[in-house]
Amino acid sequence: MINKLIANIKKTNAPIVVGLDPMLSYVPEQVQKKAFAEYGETLEGAAEAIWQFNKEIVDHTADLIPAVKPQIAMYEQFGVPGLAAYEKTIAYCQSKGLAVIGDIKRGDIGSTSAAYAVGHLGRVQVGSKTYSGFHEDFATVNPYLGSDGVKPFLDVCREEKKGIFILVKTSNPSSGEFQDRMVEGRPLYELVGEKVAQWGSELMGDDYSYVGAVVGATYPEMGRTLRKIMPKSYILVPGYGAQGGRGKDLVDFFNEDGLGAIVNSSRGIIAAYKQEKYASFGAEHFGEASRQAVLDMVQDISGALEAAKA
Amino acid sequence: MINKLIANIKKTNAPIVVGLDPMLSYVPEQVQKKAFAEYGETLEGAAEAIWQFNKEIVDHTADLIPAVKPQIAMYEQFGVPGLAAYEKTIAYCQSKGLAVIGDIKRGDIGSTSAAYAVGHLGRVQVGSKTYSGFHEDFATVNPYLGSDGVKPFLDVCREEKKGIFILVKTSNPSSGEFQDRMVEGRPLYELVGEKVAQWGSELMGDDYSYVGAVVGATYPEMGRTLRKIMPKSYILVPGYGAQGGRGKDLVDFFNEDGLGAIVNSSRGIIAAYKQEKYASFGAEHFGEASRQAVLDMVQDISGALEAAKA
Repeated sequence: MINKLIANIKKTNAPIVVGLDPMLSYVPEQVQKKAFAEYGETLEGAAEAIWQFNKEIVDHTADLIPAVKPQIAMYEQFGVPGLAAYEKTIAYCQSKGLAVIGDIKRGDIGSTSAAYAVGHLGRVQVGSKTYSGFHEDFATVNPYLGSDGVKPFLDVCREEKKGIFILVKTSNPSSGEFQDRMVEGRPLYELVGEKVAQWGSELMGDDYSYVGAVVGATYPEMGRTLRKIMPKSYILVPGYGAQGGRGKDLVDFFNEDGLGAIVNSSRGIIAAYKQEKYASFGAEHFGEASRQAVLDMVQDISGALEAAKA
Repeated sequence: MINKLIANIKKTNAPIVVGLDPMLSYVPEQVQKKAFAEYGETLEGAAEAIWQFNKEIVDHTADLIPAVKPQIAMYEQFGVPGLAAYEKTIAYCQSKGLAVIGDIKRGDIGSTSAAYAVGHLGRVQVGSKTYSGFHEDFATVNPYLGSDGVKPFLDVCREEKKGIFILVKTSNPSSGEFQDRMVEGRPLYELVGEKVAQWGSELMGDDYSYVGAVVGATYPEMGRTLRKIMPKSYILVPGYGAQGGRGKDLVDFFNEDGLGAIVNSSRGIIAAYKQEKYASFGAEHFGEASRQAVLDMVQDISGALEAAKA
């Protein structure tokens, strides 16, 4: 699956991923109204609204992007109907040829971590049959519980040729509270990064590993260090746009082959129509506003990468 | 909700929680067969099997225990139908007066963490109405992302009078890989424990805080230290039984008031009928085997607590 992601990135020439994190407040009124008319102001109605919202955005951007990253929390808040919309979104994106990174940040131990791995990336046995509950192509994983928690994901990735991105240095302001603490003279995130490199070395695709890392755009210096510690790991970079990261901050997350990083933007793309910059599209044409925001983001990042090469 | 949990513990005189973590392999054949006859060998069939399994165990143990702890991963592996069984299990346990601790180990940042908090402990707004997606009474939370990730849970707990248990020192063998790393001369888990005490001090019930901690039974010495660092936090203790913890290891997780800890057992209770010790009940009477296993566990822990007092 890492090979497919890279092929998609090369095809689109866009090392970006669109975060499908639909807050109900991002969904234009006309979409909400239509969903509520059909299902009422219910969890089912909310799920329908976010699904229709996603579909419109995917329809307007799928040819430009290699991947999407739905944030499961935004669906889980609407209970079981919300999670049904999550699954439907994944299936739809896959039917469009996109790689789907489930931003699930799961992490537990032993058989419990195995259950998450199976539910999201693998297949669960039911009597004589098997099923793939959520069938993402990649998932994000929280490493706080150690190797026991990560290993079941590695096993499923090996079997299914799928991938994970392990949280190393997250983009939020307080990520340093634990992740930056100095351990034997080095920050904890570096030790986690070394583990990622080690876990990843056993699970190689053609050029990059199935095991990637999450490193926030808001910490470019740490990105530079981690890039070197994990040369064969793809870095999923959140924090672009709304959280403050810019194209020029991102250059060092990439390798010299121009690969090795994929930059996420969520609100900046899916709620583009709410920004002054894209206001002229109007709420009716929110999908087109998202398309323009994707084009602008790709240009910002490509421009920065080219400027760095020159 | 912490007050209700403590009232339940005093009423039952049982500082334990039954982990409803139903692997399909734990579910006796007759229960699986009946579910598959109705729904086929499908995700719906698996969900029905684990729901019927849970119901039987709850019916046989609810009068003896203060709380249950369903592990969401075991439901999530069966996709959307599995999560519907998770919600149904929660509602059923609450109707029996049990406190429900959702073992979800969620943790993200900002609005994403807020979405998890809302979906599991709070209420989500849909148009003019609000809904509680999974409505657990407590949830477990992963702190690796720092205060940003925990704060949204604290906000919802304050509003809804619900509680969380933050992962401090997990019960698994490799939990030390990151959690035990020395930071300025002290292990990371102690720093997390201090944060738990600090977060908890702002959210007090009558005697204990809404903010508790997870500390594994398999690390009794660390339990002793953490008990002192977080005197007002309830400690949720996994790792009893199947993972190796025993009653005598648990004494120091409790405060002198006999409160302050709640010990989980999952497989040891729900799959008791598979143990030699309880084999005489037979798979037909798995609920009664679970009841006996609860009685034995309470006696083991109470005995150890009394021996320690003497």
